[in-house]
Amino acid sequence: MQSIIPVKLPQNAYEIHIATDGLKEIGKKAKSLNIGKKVLVISNPEIFDYYGQTVIDSFTQEGFSVNYHLIPAGESYKTLDSISKIYDTALNLRLERNSTMVALGGGVIGDMTGFAASTWLRGINFIQIPTSLLAMVDASVGGKTGVNHPQGKNLIGAFYQPKLVLIDPLVLKTLPEREFRAGMAEVIKYGVIWDKELFNRLESANNLNSMDVLSADLLSYILERSCLAKAEVVRRDEREGGVRAILNYGHTVGHGVESLTNYNTFVHGEAVAIGMAVAGKIAVEAGLWTEDELIRQNDLIKKAGLPLDIPATVDREDLLDSLQLDKKVKAGKVRFILPTEIGKVIIRDDIQTDLLRNCFRAS
Amino acid sequence: MQSIIPVKLPQNAYEIHIATDGLKEIGKKAKSLNIGKKVLVISNPEIFDYYGQTVIDSFTQEGFSVNYHLIPAGESYKTLDSISKIYDTALNLRLERNSTMVALGGGVIGDMTGFAASTWLRGINFIQIPTSLLAMVDASVGGKTGVNHPQGKNLIGAFYQPKLVLIDPLVLKTLPEREFRAGMAEVIKYGVIWDKELFNRLESANNLNSMDVLSADLLSYILERSCLAKAEVVRRDEREGGVRAILNYGHTVGHGVESLTNYNTFVHGEAVAIGMAVAGKIAVEAGLWTEDELIRQNDLIKKAGLPLDIPATVDREDLLDSLQLDKKVKAGKVRFILPTEIGKVIIRDDIQTDLLRNCFRAS
Repeated sequence: MQSIIPVKLPQNAYEIHIATDGLKEIGKKAKSLNIGKKVLVISNPEIFDYYGQTVIDSFTQEGFSVNYHLIPAGESYKTLDSISKIYDTALNLRLERNSTMVALGGGVIGDMTGFAASTWLRGINFIQIPTSLLAMVDASVGGKTGVNHPQGKNLIGAFYQPKLVLIDPLVLKTLPEREFRAGMAEVIKYGVIWDKELFNRLESANNLNSMDVLSADLLSYILERSCLAKAEVVRRDEREGGVRAILNYGHTVGHGVESLTNYNTFVHGEAVAIGMAVAGKIAVEAGLWTEDELIRQNDLIKKAGLPLDIPATVDREDLLDSLQLDKKVKAGKVRFILPTEIGKVIIRDDIQTDLLRNCFRAS
Repeated sequence: MQSIIPVKLPQNAYEIHIATDGLKEIGKKAKSLNIGKKVLVISNPEIFDYYGQTVIDSFTQEGFSVNYHLIPAGESYKTLDSISKIYDTALNLRLERNSTMVALGGGVIGDMTGFAASTWLRGINFIQIPTSLLAMVDASVGGKTGVNHPQGKNLIGAFYQPKLVLIDPLVLKTLPEREFRAGMAEVIKYGVIWDKELFNRLESANNLNSMDVLSADLLSYILERSCLAKAEVVRRDEREGGVRAILNYGHTVGHGVESLTNYNTFVHGEAVAIGMAVAGKIAVEAGLWTEDELIRQNDLIKKAGLPLDIPATVDREDLLDSLQLDKKVKAGKVRFILPTEIGKVIIRDDIQTDLLRNCFRAS
């Protein structure tokens, strides 16, 4: 089974291939693009143990000259220093402008590989092979690349589009269940902000908290609809001036919670789940959304085994302060993405601090 | 006197304002763009001593909130580490997506400020105030930003366009004469590769080796024609896939000479002058150009007080090897930009190593 989602950007069109057992076809797919012979696969040791050889063999069989560069797993390595090490490898391999960096991994590997590719020789080719559910449904589309600053996530980066994204659902078998659930948070997000049908289909599933309980059909459906939703939003707004902001639903508070728990308590998707529950509550308190639909959203979040509440250890005033540091702040105003009905959201920057404070206390 | 050169790129149009004594108008000009209130001026201590206060006052008078960040002068500070320090300042000032970084300085400051602006929050506004002749005629157009890798110049970077370029010819009064002559190398380059009229006008000047010997009229003409030439080439090829390569005339060998003299013998323009003399000789040896026009080019280079010869200390075989590391290498082939007549060049990647060796030995 294979489905192809075209991502139609004005200057940078590319395709997402969702292909079961597609990993071994990557060399062939890459060959059909107009790229040079040199390929650098960037991964982490664990993922590379599982899938590195398959990918390298596939490129080698098609005549590419392939090398790899490994970065230890984890957000703590998502730094400018790790990028600097990729540059050293690129230099040693004499990568050229038509050479290609391939991200084999989750969001951290994808973000860093994309940033390195965007800044080496002012931009070389970039192919993504996301191996986590989150990276498949989120990082495959949008061109956001980058690393963390010691004092804030993703503050350093660039918009840079891949030449190709290959999603092989089979690789999710080796994804830890917690990571699977975290990815499901973004899937639920697409249901709430954009795709009512996807939301309904998720509601009718018995369970969402493990790869094993999903049928192959439902999994493919989820991947397709999520990528389609994001591709459509990004197509309308490649560089995040307007509608694209809705993709940040749940992220404003989510980032604050991640930051105030030192990035060691929640994975990103869990923080987004909490952020969606809080944003939903804000929407209801502001009279924009119904309590009933908020409950439906939160039931999905629970069915995916994800948290709803801001932990007691997070000081609510610190959380309010942290919102000011978010990239989405404009002229000191914090923007919130708030649902008005399942499948629709609006952007508001006039939510009163008192309302926020109340929602944070009650969350 | 003010002239405005529009740089018409598909997604990023902006203007170059050439305005005598225009420095004090920068605040007003910036205000007419749609940018936020926060401005970070990036400069080096010497330039900032001369012009920092004028620029800051001009922004302040228009209601901007202005700060500055200084980087010691010199190519040796054009590093990822310097960029990292700009990020720290940006974080401390809470720069937002509509905030603006202003480069007040020569090429090093411009390249670094542009790169920092392109990668902070995935891209904030960028204004250039070039203070060297080289930066005025070269870095004002093209969107090339970046830093050096310890083993190669400008290997790390991005294409990123400014919102505005302000050129105030009066600031050249404080430019060291050696730097002025170095900038003249690029002016001569535009004459050879693109603009026969500019070449002829340069030929008719009594002298080109100092700001003091040029009339204000000739200086304005030089700035305009050079920016126009580059703007036209870049408009046709924003990201350097085709015709833009001709701007590298003299740079292939020039970069090699700079690198093999450890960047401590020649400034960039001097190395480009040598590179043009060598490229001209290659063109003549390959039967593409007349000896007569080569002599006319070299006479201009001499009139600008610039060097023509590869120094004896540079090992010619090392120079041949160094060409392979250049960013312009494609599939192992070194591309040369070679004149066919004054105002016209072609791109060739089939120059035999023996011919190169002979030209290097004789240069």
